[in-house]
Amino acid sequence: GAFGAPPPAANDPMWGYFTAIAGQDGEIDAEELQKCLTQAGFTGNYAPFSLDTCRIMIAMLDRDFTGKMGFNEFKELFAALNGWKQNFMMFDQDRSGTVEPHEMSQAINAMGYRMSPQALNGILKRYSKNGRIYFDDYVACCVKLRALTDNFKRRDTMQQGSVNFQYDDFILCTMSI
Amino acid sequence: GAFGAPPPAANDPMWGYFTAIAGQDGEIDAEELQKCLTQAGFTGNYAPFSLDTCRIMIAMLDRDFTGKMGFNEFKELFAALNGWKQNFMMFDQDRSGTVEPHEMSQAINAMGYRMSPQALNGILKRYSKNGRIYFDDYVACCVKLRALTDNFKRRDTMQQGSVNFQYDDFILCTMSI
Repeated sequence: GAFGAPPPAANDPMWGYFTAIAGQDGEIDAEELQKCLTQAGFTGNYAPFSLDTCRIMIAMLDRDFTGKMGFNEFKELFAALNGWKQNFMMFDQDRSGTVEPHEMSQAINAMGYRMSPQALNGILKRYSKNGRIYFDDYVACCVKLRALTDNFKRRDTMQQGSVNFQYDDFILCTMSI
Repeated sequence: GAFGAPPPAANDPMWGYFTAIAGQDGEIDAEELQKCLTQAGFTGNYAPFSLDTCRIMIAMLDRDFTGKMGFNEFKELFAALNGWKQNFMMFDQDRSGTVEPHEMSQAINAMGYRMSPQALNGILKRYSKNGRIYFDDYVACCVKLRALTDNFKRRDTMQQGSVNFQYDDFILCTMSI
């Protein structure tokens, strides 16, 4: 009611923005996210994110498996996106909207991921088009890499760098992203 | 030369078809695959496969990590695609090009996969658009599920239903698909 306590996020400058996008159900789905990131000018001169990349972004943060994103998850995503975009633009000096595979591998290194040349090569092949990596695919890759690494680390409680996966848990961790 | 032995696949009716698509390098990349599956009428009245789904298809079979597909891999993919399409059409009685999540879960069961409701739910959420699953996404899901299960089983040599993954191998198995 009018005299009730404000929602915890009411003083947050992003709250009004979030509620305007989220609409009646108070959560953001992939279509809403795509629209919002385009309208907010996030992608700028770059091509808008594909719906598929938006679904991967939501899946990464969707810990309750609703297929939608609440306010805190929204803020977390925005922070991550800004970091990735800065990283991408550092390499995309000519603002072509693409980077070269070796630049992508430098970016992955710069984010602190350590992996073998074979694993890195698999990633670069998967996310390249005609030998270049587009911003949209770059972000989809960052989202997946982060989500998979998070899932792995959460299970690697002894920090040994190895995890024993049951088949069902393996599928749960990998298929929903 | 003209008197040399024919290539091993020369008598295969699909060989001419394959070479016509593959062009000079003798292998099929994602763009070529998309064009070929559309022109061959494989998707029929359904929307053509997205480039992303085509890349996932190639990644599934791309054991040498070239990002392209040779003749045997091409035939293997065609056989799998035909099976998935039949399965999909069984559920898509009104030829809308979509199935419902509960039908998709029946299809996954029918393919012999056994998983918890939670894992299944994660998959359905990931591949739904407005509560329905399109043929393109259905195929992308089948490709991924098969590739991930293959990767898992290849490591589960004792068939115990569990695998000990090193981080690097986990990323190699999951990120390139």
